[in-house]
Amino acid sequence: MTKIITLDHGSGGQASDDLIKNLFLKYLTHPELKQLNDSAVLEQVSGKLAFSTDSYVVDPIFFPGGDIGELAVNGTINDLSMMGARPLYLSLGLIIEEGLDLDDLEKIIYSIGRASEITGVPIVTGDTKVVPKGKGDKIFINTSGIGVIDSGIDIGPHRIKEGDKIILSGTMADHGVTILTKRAEIDFSGSLTSDTTALHNITSLLLDHFPGDIHAMRDPTRGGVANVLNELAENTELNMEIKESNIPIRAEVKAACELLGLDPLYLANEGKCLIFVSATVADETLKLLRNLPEGKMAAIIGHTDTQHPGKVILNTNAGGRRLVNRLIGAPLPRIC
Amino acid sequence: MTKIITLDHGSGGQASDDLIKNLFLKYLTHPELKQLNDSAVLEQVSGKLAFSTDSYVVDPIFFPGGDIGELAVNGTINDLSMMGARPLYLSLGLIIEEGLDLDDLEKIIYSIGRASEITGVPIVTGDTKVVPKGKGDKIFINTSGIGVIDSGIDIGPHRIKEGDKIILSGTMADHGVTILTKRAEIDFSGSLTSDTTALHNITSLLLDHFPGDIHAMRDPTRGGVANVLNELAENTELNMEIKESNIPIRAEVKAACELLGLDPLYLANEGKCLIFVSATVADETLKLLRNLPEGKMAAIIGHTDTQHPGKVILNTNAGGRRLVNRLIGAPLPRIC
Repeated sequence: MTKIITLDHGSGGQASDDLIKNLFLKYLTHPELKQLNDSAVLEQVSGKLAFSTDSYVVDPIFFPGGDIGELAVNGTINDLSMMGARPLYLSLGLIIEEGLDLDDLEKIIYSIGRASEITGVPIVTGDTKVVPKGKGDKIFINTSGIGVIDSGIDIGPHRIKEGDKIILSGTMADHGVTILTKRAEIDFSGSLTSDTTALHNITSLLLDHFPGDIHAMRDPTRGGVANVLNELAENTELNMEIKESNIPIRAEVKAACELLGLDPLYLANEGKCLIFVSATVADETLKLLRNLPEGKMAAIIGHTDTQHPGKVILNTNAGGRRLVNRLIGAPLPRIC
Repeated sequence: MTKIITLDHGSGGQASDDLIKNLFLKYLTHPELKQLNDSAVLEQVSGKLAFSTDSYVVDPIFFPGGDIGELAVNGTINDLSMMGARPLYLSLGLIIEEGLDLDDLEKIIYSIGRASEITGVPIVTGDTKVVPKGKGDKIFINTSGIGVIDSGIDIGPHRIKEGDKIILSGTMADHGVTILTKRAEIDFSGSLTSDTTALHNITSLLLDHFPGDIHAMRDPTRGGVANVLNELAENTELNMEIKESNIPIRAEVKAACELLGLDPLYLANEGKCLIFVSATVADETLKLLRNLPEGKMAAIIGHTDTQHPGKVILNTNAGGRRLVNRLIGAPLPRIC
């Protein structure tokens, strides 16, 4: 008989304790987590703090190229990295549906532990709740993260300037199209995989080299590249000029989008970021990026301008220009 | 027609943006939150950091004496306070079920804003996900918190000593019995209310006066007083001797427990804590506590000893002695 999660595992009693000690602490090994205190006690950090939170409700929880556990670790590391912070610590909040297969839970916790080890960002505090069958969906994961921003680093939309180049760190829409086709059970012969990966090596490398010239970074998850560029255009009152032929996209992803009638500009990405950088160092930045495995497909996809404040304009392959509007509703719920 | 949450509100597009700007930022007003960046950027703090996370899945979401929003703010503040930290910042992660009444959501966000204002601990970063109807239950809330531990403060189970007095900061089992009777629709003429409140004033007052003599603190939420004392008895290899007649409990709560055949030692509390303090200052500590509104029913309920390592022993009203075992399963799921 398969072992499953029961309500007892969320009671705070002996069953909770067994789950934590026998399964969670097997893969999550930071000494502060092992204390099982009400909160973790961590050393003083010097520099500004970055603090971020994200809940992951992706469906399915296992998908080509990743799973909800790895996504939850890397996603929050990326949110910290996008503000120029070095990620230091993560928290882990699990909401598990009664009936979840214990083997599936173990796979997820293993995956969390592995992503945490690869990135060097430990889980230091956690919480587990169990909800009755039909009141959740297998597992939802919240991770929150603390990072530190070294002195002199100031990254954000307020720093974006006219003429900045816009770099995309890799191919577009891999995560979105993978989840969508997996969920719809459309078979593209296994050629589509998610791009979930951590971006902290990209950001630390760029900030080491060009601390003053990296103006803003953003990972285009929900709503895709189109949505992030629209938000930033609105906030900065600049226009974003992008060139379709320069946007990296895998042939399989492009084909799947054409077949399904989807615009990849609106599809989610996980291990990718948009970088706004001074034009003077854009080429050197690109060269640095391409030396990293997670940046080898990076490209300059456009620049900022002042002629059409608040707008995103796509220069198409056909030689036309079109407005890229903001996404209104959900192209695909539960993408992350 | 009542307005409700739709999947579009979780898309990251225009509908998400409207919800955040028109509802969330109406009640949650910290300037860093308003930036809507990937993470909040906060000033450097001096002292050790405390970091805590908790997901709240309480059912019902509104109950006599509180709601899930207030609970989520105060609960995480309490987890930080229990380690001797001053709570500084909170994150807010919402997982909303499609179909939630927007008026109910507004009540909850209002309640979060109010609890945050009363305690002076702002929400600085957030995230909202929407899951399809039937894949969640109205709303689940994760809050994570950062606090700072002043130099010289060291609180935790490792500091508990033989002969320490055990103080309970107020009446036992109010939250557990309120949720249980509300959920079962048993009417006790409105006399039962939850005790959700923040404990940071209690902890800061005590640590100001007796920094070296407050050894450990713990809020007995899930699993109640019985469970926390068992955990600490196991960790410290001391025994916990408590006296039934000294444990504060409201007459209505006691009556409800007797009627329903429940042991209040195992029922959840929210705005209460157990404090382990040097015997020499126990009476003064009690006097200080009783001057605070949230501590006016505080009492010394027992002490630690070495004769029965790892055990919790109740000296009953009838003059007997009995072992208080650890909770195995769920007396009541989704209590917090």
